[in-house]
Amino acid sequence: MTTQELTTQIKKKNSFLCIGLDVDLNKIPKHLLDSKDPIFEFNKAIIDATHHLCVAYKPNTAFYEAYGIKGWQALEKTIQYLNYNHPEIFTIADAKRGDIGNTSTMYAKAFFEDLAFDSVTVAPYMGKDSVEPFLAFKNKHTIMLALTSNKGAFDFQTLSVNNNELYKQVLETSKSWENSENLMYVVGATKAEYFAEIRKIVPNNFLLVPGVGAQGGNLQEVCKYGMSENVGLLINSSRGTIYASKNKDFAQAAALDALELQEQMKAILNK
Amino acid sequence: MTTQELTTQIKKKNSFLCIGLDVDLNKIPKHLLDSKDPIFEFNKAIIDATHHLCVAYKPNTAFYEAYGIKGWQALEKTIQYLNYNHPEIFTIADAKRGDIGNTSTMYAKAFFEDLAFDSVTVAPYMGKDSVEPFLAFKNKHTIMLALTSNKGAFDFQTLSVNNNELYKQVLETSKSWENSENLMYVVGATKAEYFAEIRKIVPNNFLLVPGVGAQGGNLQEVCKYGMSENVGLLINSSRGTIYASKNKDFAQAAALDALELQEQMKAILNK
Repeated sequence: MTTQELTTQIKKKNSFLCIGLDVDLNKIPKHLLDSKDPIFEFNKAIIDATHHLCVAYKPNTAFYEAYGIKGWQALEKTIQYLNYNHPEIFTIADAKRGDIGNTSTMYAKAFFEDLAFDSVTVAPYMGKDSVEPFLAFKNKHTIMLALTSNKGAFDFQTLSVNNNELYKQVLETSKSWENSENLMYVVGATKAEYFAEIRKIVPNNFLLVPGVGAQGGNLQEVCKYGMSENVGLLINSSRGTIYASKNKDFAQAAALDALELQEQMKAILNK
Repeated sequence: MTTQELTTQIKKKNSFLCIGLDVDLNKIPKHLLDSKDPIFEFNKAIIDATHHLCVAYKPNTAFYEAYGIKGWQALEKTIQYLNYNHPEIFTIADAKRGDIGNTSTMYAKAFFEDLAFDSVTVAPYMGKDSVEPFLAFKNKHTIMLALTSNKGAFDFQTLSVNNNELYKQVLETSKSWENSENLMYVVGATKAEYFAEIRKIVPNNFLLVPGVGAQGGNLQEVCKYGMSENVGLLINSSRGTIYASKNKDFAQAAALDALELQEQMKAILNK
């Protein structure tokens, strides 16, 4: 999917919501555990109930790998279901990968070719030659960690390098990489004022924003400082949406939560 | 496996060699491609031929994920084969994972419980709460990226923060984390003199050292500066060993290459 197509979808649906499919078998409704593939059944129900309200889904690979082969199979079925039934949806493998060049190419093949995701998240620590292999894939997007929403973000990401915080240096440096137009960035929503600074460095790239809701960020504030001309934001909600109810009505409850977020987004987009 | 047991194995085998099982179907001998599971057959042959010469094996997960479910199955079979036949071997999932706390716990379960590896590599960018969930597992080891062997290492890892290079700050900070005795570090062998500096910060932790051989590091130099009282080094060789021959004699060729490295290590240990 191209960035232009993503923006078109956002405007059509009046939504820049991404739903995180972080399926924990201890948290899903008990009745699903009797089915053959509880993870996929859960995802399918969530997708069926919410796809008109969001523009992206983001399974975090950790939740699938934790269940071994069965987990990987559920991930494969989920992305196939999305690609077949909802090709207009932007798909994100939240995998936070990164390795030396040759090895990053293998990861890129895993997520862009074998699983056919539109995008994958990557970590910046190993630098240019660990990220460029992902950027080489046409119409695929590489979403690099910049400023994350967890406490540990302040261990290294905000340390001062060259009179700049490390995450800003990461943003700045990455702009010079080959095919950097295929970069998006993860920016946590815990401090909305950071977005103004970030937009000075990357005015147009899409930002994937976790931490609105459960992790405490504020949607209005994030949009005020972070929105770009082409919207440029994907706001992620995981637990708050998919675990809105633990009962048989879980999919409807997820849809209600997603609708509330989408209505806020619609109001912002139409301002 | 405890660190003490690892050191015991090193002294018994006169080797601190780790063999990287980075299986690329384009590089393995053609005749294996006819078998039901070429990746596992390749690994099994390499393990059978080299297990007496090394103390650790390190499959890089990228090479398995690139082949989807079949790849993940081959990874599972490989670790099961190792754990069943060679419980004395230290196993490393080279996965470079890391995410917010709850999610890192899922990764830790994937590699420590579901696949039963002794250790996993992680990335430091997200800080303390992204790594501590791995450290909480008893007798399991978390190998954090410090200074990698690729060119991109100089993009961020060697930038100056607090009058210190970032990778040194990463080492220093990580010492205060809970269960930090379960930490090992990835330190590339491209510049041996770095090891002297690193040993001032982490005198005893094991260092996993890629880049001897193919990537240009020198074994003697690395040992001169990097060896600790309990040896404290695992030197990794991947391509140089497992692809020593592309013909039917590939396993014997790998064993010859491993033997050469092991003999150099023996000489160093007995000095």
